[in-house]
Amino acid sequence: MLGKLSVIGIGPGDPELLTLKAVRIIKESQVLCVPKGREEGSSLALSIVEKAVALEGKEVLEAHFPMMKTRKSKGAEKDELDAKWSSAAADMLAKLKEGLDVAFPTLGDPTIYSTFFYLYDKLIELEPDLEIEIVPGVSSINAAAARANIYLGLGNDSIAVLPANYMDNLKSTLSTFNTVVLMKVNKVLNDIVKLLDEMGLADKAVCVSRVGMEDEEVIDDIRSIKQEELNYFSMIIVRK
Amino acid sequence: MLGKLSVIGIGPGDPELLTLKAVRIIKESQVLCVPKGREEGSSLALSIVEKAVALEGKEVLEAHFPMMKTRKSKGAEKDELDAKWSSAAADMLAKLKEGLDVAFPTLGDPTIYSTFFYLYDKLIELEPDLEIEIVPGVSSINAAAARANIYLGLGNDSIAVLPANYMDNLKSTLSTFNTVVLMKVNKVLNDIVKLLDEMGLADKAVCVSRVGMEDEEVIDDIRSIKQEELNYFSMIIVRK
Repeated sequence: MLGKLSVIGIGPGDPELLTLKAVRIIKESQVLCVPKGREEGSSLALSIVEKAVALEGKEVLEAHFPMMKTRKSKGAEKDELDAKWSSAAADMLAKLKEGLDVAFPTLGDPTIYSTFFYLYDKLIELEPDLEIEIVPGVSSINAAAARANIYLGLGNDSIAVLPANYMDNLKSTLSTFNTVVLMKVNKVLNDIVKLLDEMGLADKAVCVSRVGMEDEEVIDDIRSIKQEELNYFSMIIVRK
Repeated sequence: MLGKLSVIGIGPGDPELLTLKAVRIIKESQVLCVPKGREEGSSLALSIVEKAVALEGKEVLEAHFPMMKTRKSKGAEKDELDAKWSSAAADMLAKLKEGLDVAFPTLGDPTIYSTFFYLYDKLIELEPDLEIEIVPGVSSINAAAARANIYLGLGNDSIAVLPANYMDNLKSTLSTFNTVVLMKVNKVLNDIVKLLDEMGLADKAVCVSRVGMEDEEVIDDIRSIKQEELNYFSMIIVRK
């Protein structure tokens, strides 16, 4: 009898933004699977969860997840990444095959740029009968807008969300959409500020950094930001 | 001493998708302000909240919120709507001025098409010192993708969210973005299915209706849907 796998959105960082359902399923699961530490050697997701749920007696499976570029890799690099994903999937499946329920907490909402979906196909390939429940969570995008006291959309507004490496379509998207959310701006901030300035939109933009975490910041004057000081967890919301 | 106003995202319908923070603030607030019944005479938001939090002893303020078209109305109609919004704002302020904390629960996430933001400016205009906290919640968009077991974005994917009346830009948006979420499709379904068919995208689309509610539905074959039977709370997610 296979255990059940639950992929759980835990919100952007504030442990109070876990849902009642997230708390219940984590409590009920015997095993917690977390990505092996990206931030200072310990899993960020785990550190948030343990502030909201007592984890004593649970097994914590730390799986190594390769970085996000998987889908664009080729040749030997692709094979190597693929092998790592397969190995992470096999580790999780071993627990599920023992009949244990596994919870996989993921920052924000699982459907928004969560690494988990790289695993999804591997898991189903290895075990077609596996039951996977995706438990939605508060996305960092919604939390950032809330923190800045603005809406993302109202009435018939259109909203675009663009991750990094989007400079190609940025101008036309900014012309067409009422709200544009730019994710992971830390590497391209200077180019973005320049374009927004040219389009007369710099004053319509707000930058939210590390939303939901203790050192979160809302920066209204995006021109004042130094690109090299900006954190990876930073986004800009432009609302026309 | 003014009370505090908290605008609280309660998620798409499942009471378990309230966050810990939503539950705490609703418990701590003396007054709950809810829109006067859109659905069969009782407030949908209230019926969800009361399944997660005991509301005994709390005052429930039912405010009449005019329909969403406010921003496009003109002349006498605009004045009438404006007066209704002002009156709703005044009712809430009266409670806050008694020093009572007011919670305003809103379906999904407050920053995603929530009626509350029509009130925001009125409230600040009447009472510039008012403290308003926006508490983010699980958006119906994220919940719908989770329910359909798909992601909205992965890696460098771009995401567009379009509400109804978007047929103008739909084709170019479908060409440019990796994922397109079409809200409130119930009035325009036939046109959408026709366009998606022409673009070879009908098989990449899924319709999710009343996500988070007891009668939620995921419909993989969008061609099988009858427009006249589709609920207002329905969206289509196209993922290329």
